[in-house]
Amino acid sequence: MDQPPFIHERALVESDVVGAGTRIWAFAHVMPGAVIGAGCNICDFTYIEGGAIIGDRVTLKSGVFLWDGVRVEDDVFIGPQATFTNDLMPRSRQPFQLTETTICRGASIGAGAVVLAGVTIGEGAMVGAGAVVTKDVPAHAVVVGNPARVMRTLPS
Amino acid sequence: MDQPPFIHERALVESDVVGAGTRIWAFAHVMPGAVIGAGCNICDFTYIEGGAIIGDRVTLKSGVFLWDGVRVEDDVFIGPQATFTNDLMPRSRQPFQLTETTICRGASIGAGAVVLAGVTIGEGAMVGAGAVVTKDVPAHAVVVGNPARVMRTLPS
Amino acid sequence: MDQPPFIHERALVESDVVGAGTRIWAFAHVMPGAVIGAGCNICDFTYIEGGAIIGDRVTLKSGVFLWDGVRVEDDVFIGPQATFTNDLMPRSRQPFQLTETTICRGASIGAGAVVLAGVTIGEGAMVGAGAVVTKDVPAHAVVVGNPARVMRTLPS
Repeated sequence: MDQPPFIHERALVESDVVGAGTRIWAFAHVMPGAVIGAGCNICDFTYIEGGAIIGDRVTLKSGVFLWDGVRVEDDVFIGPQATFTNDLMPRSRQPFQLTETTICRGASIGAGAVVLAGVTIGEGAMVGAGAVVTKDVPAHAVVVGNPARVMRTLPS
Repeated sequence: MDQPPFIHERALVESDVVGAGTRIWAFAHVMPGAVIGAGCNICDFTYIEGGAIIGDRVTLKSGVFLWDGVRVEDDVFIGPQATFTNDLMPRSRQPFQLTETTICRGASIGAGAVVLAGVTIGEGAMVGAGAVVTKDVPAHAVVVGNPARVMRTLPS
Repeated sequence: MDQPPFIHERALVESDVVGAGTRIWAFAHVMPGAVIGAGCNICDFTYIEGGAIIGDRVTLKSGVFLWDGVRVEDDVFIGPQATFTNDLMPRSRQPFQLTETTICRGASIGAGAVVLAGVTIGEGAMVGAGAVVTKDVPAHAVVVGNPARVMRTLPS
């Protein structure tokens, strides 16, 4: 029998699509419609918009906000304060074209990294802390810097 | 007749100078004395200090903190986790000289950008995601990188 | 007689080791076991894990998260959104080797800076806003950039 999700009493979870065993901590906010898989760890001060999709066994450290159009596959780690976007030319109160981002299975996004809308982070890739990712990252690549560049490739 | 502001039940709004139609979302904290215009969208996990001034139709995405001395003009977009300061040489528990920052009308600050105290971001400028802005940005310029440099100029 | 700590009614403080006169503000979350000295200022949206240690007269601005293995000595200033880590090769749901970080007495960490696990920030050093610190910072050095480099040394 599946373990129910754990939801901290100071979290605000408005979606009912939260997988078995997932833990959602204090001051997290999950919007209606958001899809969260099983066995995830969703830390304090996270925000998950209604159009975001999160796989199984994903870790979101504190201060991670996932917007409509961001898809996070299974076994992904997203470090604290890593930042995502869904609009390449944002202007206040203007209509915008939603641009999608995918973080593929098993990838890790380092603390404080910034990932521009439209990018795909390949399977098992590792985005270094503080990197600013402006284009696709190949599978198993390690990228660092601003803008992020491939430093090496991990064994797959 | 003006539409009243919407304040989420999990927000903490201690200012009564919030303009018509402005929406303030969960876990936002607005301090006494802060001035917020009309038609703004103030997202989750934002903090607005008592000496900050925000114009009309401004968007503050999640994780934006505006300190005393930060002035945001009308129609500005501030992306998630964009960071502001008001002290150029911060030391704990020391008196400091407040240094002002202005974000001019219609500018956009990208996700995760850092804006140093004392800077003016010109009208309609666009600060790229992850940029670290150490000096004034001309009107309509697009700046990127650490430190931020002008990449191009938008039609005004 | 010691002044008791001030804890905002919207904070969640689960440690009872909080020093005299320390102030902890709204939406801060302090975990059981965390050690916080006297005369600190712990701002909104901060998170202090049970294994973190904080000295006296420390300022943590909003959006600062201190993990197990992070030690902050007396009189340190940590700017808004400055980011710490404790794992050099994070992967979701994998065991990891905790890597310690020390911020020595009187140092300041600028807004939005990223400090990699394992680093020591020397006494009185100043990490510039938006810097990405990948190696030890000497005492009284000023470092900026991604990766961070010494720009100059302050009088000690």
